[in-house]
Amino acid sequence: MSNSEVAELPVVRDGDVVPCCPPITAGELSRADAEKMAAMFKALSDPVRLRLFSKVASHPGGEACVCDIADVGVSQPTVSHHLKKLREAGLLTSERRGTWVYYRVAPSVVAAMAAMLDLRA
Amino acid sequence: MSNSEVAELPVVRDGDVVPCCPPITAGELSRADAEKMAAMFKALSDPVRLRLFSKVASHPGGEACVCDIADVGVSQPTVSHHLKKLREAGLLTSERRGTWVYYRVAPSVVAAMAAMLDLRA
Repeated sequence: MSNSEVAELPVVRDGDVVPCCPPITAGELSRADAEKMAAMFKALSDPVRLRLFSKVASHPGGEACVCDIADVGVSQPTVSHHLKKLREAGLLTSERRGTWVYYRVAPSVVAAMAAMLDLRA
Repeated sequence: MSNSEVAELPVVRDGDVVPCCPPITAGELSRADAEKMAAMFKALSDPVRLRLFSKVASHPGGEACVCDIADVGVSQPTVSHHLKKLREAGLLTSERRGTWVYYRVAPSVVAAMAAMLDLRA
């Protein structure tokens, strides 16, 4: 793999999407925070997208390429579309290496969603 | 409040919606679990609905009636529609007492969502 093959895609890195918010039990979400968090939840609101997300998250090494996870019963362009949505919402990061784009869960973003739903907090 | 005024609505009680699933890092979600969880995430995918949810969750005593939380900039029928969606998804429970319907967060359902997003697990 040559360096010139790297990062041909716009790469969302963990940290580009700044997560918020306090736990929902702590107080009312602001309008701005609600917009931000709703977009993240929306990314997980499709069953196929959620399965793809779980496939990336549970893949050995914590990363997967389309070639590893495309067996969800939809076409490859649809898989790519869903992965793009997850990336745009900040839940996945991506990196092109050679022929393939590799996806990873963005831990801080997913942790922020979990923290917001933490009723013990 | 007389007993005859109680439970005029179909009441979803915590436990009616059986939550699932292992953390996403533990393995691929089944198709059935993905359908179930996606519906819960969908309930939080609208900013107004998410704000209403946070208002119920953070209300003193852990419960709120429409009268407590309707100031989110949409009409009261729209508020009621959103609360119904949250109830149908199992995230809120409701109980009519006298004139008002009171809403509470369904803790096991929300905890299941948080657990699924727990990357430390």
